[in-house]
Amino acid sequence: MAIGVTYPQGFQAGTAGCGIKAFTAGATAIPSGQRDDLAVLFSERPCDAGGVFTSNRVKAAPVIIDQLHLQQNRVQALVVNSGNANACTGAQGFRDALQMAKLTADRLELDPPQVLVSSTGVIGRFLPMTAVKTGIRLACDSLSARGGEAAAKAIMTTDTVPKTAELELEVGGVQVRVGGMCKGSGMIHPNLATMLAYVVTDAAVEPGWAAAAVKPIADRSFNQVTVDGDSSTNDSFLLLANGAAGNPPIAAGSAESKQLEEAVLEVARALARKIAQDGEGATKLITVRIAGAPDDQQARLAARSVASSSLVKTAIHGGDPNWGRIVCALGYSGSELAIDTLTVQVAGVTVFDKGAGVEADLDRVRRAFEQPEIEIHAALGMGEGKAEAWGCDLSEEYVHINADYTT
Amino acid sequence: MAIGVTYPQGFQAGTAGCGIKAFTAGATAIPSGQRDDLAVLFSERPCDAGGVFTSNRVKAAPVIIDQLHLQQNRVQALVVNSGNANACTGAQGFRDALQMAKLTADRLELDPPQVLVSSTGVIGRFLPMTAVKTGIRLACDSLSARGGEAAAKAIMTTDTVPKTAELELEVGGVQVRVGGMCKGSGMIHPNLATMLAYVVTDAAVEPGWAAAAVKPIADRSFNQVTVDGDSSTNDSFLLLANGAAGNPPIAAGSAESKQLEEAVLEVARALARKIAQDGEGATKLITVRIAGAPDDQQARLAARSVASSSLVKTAIHGGDPNWGRIVCALGYSGSELAIDTLTVQVAGVTVFDKGAGVEADLDRVRRAFEQPEIEIHAALGMGEGKAEAWGCDLSEEYVHINADYTT
Repeated sequence: MAIGVTYPQGFQAGTAGCGIKAFTAGATAIPSGQRDDLAVLFSERPCDAGGVFTSNRVKAAPVIIDQLHLQQNRVQALVVNSGNANACTGAQGFRDALQMAKLTADRLELDPPQVLVSSTGVIGRFLPMTAVKTGIRLACDSLSARGGEAAAKAIMTTDTVPKTAELELEVGGVQVRVGGMCKGSGMIHPNLATMLAYVVTDAAVEPGWAAAAVKPIADRSFNQVTVDGDSSTNDSFLLLANGAAGNPPIAAGSAESKQLEEAVLEVARALARKIAQDGEGATKLITVRIAGAPDDQQARLAARSVASSSLVKTAIHGGDPNWGRIVCALGYSGSELAIDTLTVQVAGVTVFDKGAGVEADLDRVRRAFEQPEIEIHAALGMGEGKAEAWGCDLSEEYVHINADYTT
Repeated sequence: MAIGVTYPQGFQAGTAGCGIKAFTAGATAIPSGQRDDLAVLFSERPCDAGGVFTSNRVKAAPVIIDQLHLQQNRVQALVVNSGNANACTGAQGFRDALQMAKLTADRLELDPPQVLVSSTGVIGRFLPMTAVKTGIRLACDSLSARGGEAAAKAIMTTDTVPKTAELELEVGGVQVRVGGMCKGSGMIHPNLATMLAYVVTDAAVEPGWAAAAVKPIADRSFNQVTVDGDSSTNDSFLLLANGAAGNPPIAAGSAESKQLEEAVLEVARALARKIAQDGEGATKLITVRIAGAPDDQQARLAARSVASSSLVKTAIHGGDPNWGRIVCALGYSGSELAIDTLTVQVAGVTVFDKGAGVEADLDRVRRAFEQPEIEIHAALGMGEGKAEAWGCDLSEEYVHINADYTT
């Protein structure tokens, strides 16, 4: 099935199960029933590529390597492993990340700088390179234009479902495809929940288009499911365009560019929502919409603050219409706020209006909180800024998952 | 027993149980077995007073009233209720907070601006003023120099134990006492955990001493048990000095002032640790010590970041020596950081040194994580800045408490 990252033309994915997590923990053989934990994505042509990475001052080795390789802008492949983050691994970590690029490049007859590398999993352990080498060989041997879903599965850690999205659009009379995959969970309070996201398109673009487009798209999608943008050591969002659709190359600023950016954003937002929905232990998706902020940036802060408030999350988990927690999360968001002009709706019911609570139908709110999807809407009444953010409820299960991650 | 806020001379406390939470939720009679939920603190002399309050843009009515009343600097009493925060209550909320000051002033023959007001509890509901009025009368009638512990109990919400601290010191040949009480829980991730703290002394000080001293003391104590300083609508820390000890008034900047500031800080730190220790569902106290930061301010950021990381907290709850989460919480703290010069110790065992993990005795670390108190120490190797922060582990119980707070 051509979905996710193999939906656009000219992309192939392959996967392998090589026991990276088990070997990291000291195993000497691949466990029986090993699921795939390594994926390779190959483009038949060199791509225009861009990436945004974690803002954490502690950056994992593959992040540094990718920043380096993107400077040449001839990317043609990607290798991703789960089970070991290759973070806080010193000089050995850099050698291992470079070696992953080189092993992949050798199998695919590319130069190492044409390969991007991502890793996710436990921090502070060296990659088991023998296993990784086997995995890269097997994954390269299994490359297929139908490999998108298997790749989305191979990059999972605590994710419970693979996450893919895709769409087709017409740009200047040519059919163009956009597809993506991501992994990310633990976003309930993502102090260290690695998010890896990849969106690829077969559109032809002018060199530099992807590097310019990737940040604004991240700000309106993946960064809105995290508390503070990018905080794990490994967070990466990569955007590749290989030109296989055969359209005239799209230049930044053109009408075609706007169309393509919107399409990439739509895929990115769909992926971001899937991350929120699959938060560790999550049972409900929370969508927060902000209108009337002084500007979009402040709207994003406000939306994220509500979507990531532990107290809002636990209230929603308990089906508790405690709207005071929403108002207060807005208050400490960093956005300008005047409670005199603030209106808050939960599931379409106004619960706070211009400085004070209103007599709302709390039973209706409570019933809404019990649904699998909850919408919270705040109108700040200060300007034209708007934004969305996504989160999930905080359940007891989250604690179970994270109390026992490496042991 | 003269402890807490009645340990210094010339202070009396009284309490009453008037069913504020029950009436707020619609009850028409005081529940049987009602615990105290209102406290009055009275000083026999006017105090030099200072306060620091929440940085939330949504400030509860009593916070605004206190900021106003502190301008006259003639404070002689304090009235605090639990069960209702009087936040997001519009103009009615201001009237009610002023009325609390006036009712207390009338009973104690003071002017209303001589009374400070605090509230904590559910947000967005009007105070049940009939109950509050009864409570203020009863509390004023029960004022006693032995009322400190009862007062600390009356201001509790989800706290499981009352929190008091006190010490005596000699300043310029005169015995001086410092005592305090606080409430605060839910500090595991305190998006909206109201902290109320009161430190009082019988030292005589020059007018303005308390207002100048209160902020630096808060920065090194109460602000180090919260993620982002002050984020609830009601957070307040008040410092009162009534001069009953009879020492020559202490001027800011003098050697005596330094002595007294250190004593107040010691009481404040003891109270702050008790808040962390009593985090909702907490089973362990985490102390994070940072050394070698570029300055104290960055050290405080780094210490708070580790102490408030959900993933560090859950790892510690699970007895899981996942030190990578500590390094990464340092990475996104906002402090300058270079992993090449970073060393991390957990319970005295070095687990990370200059860019990479070291072979540590993980069994020893794991055993340390299973103790009721855990110390994490990070040396950043960049300067002279140092700080401490306190937190607690994140347990399943936290979710239970917060999923069902107003229902």
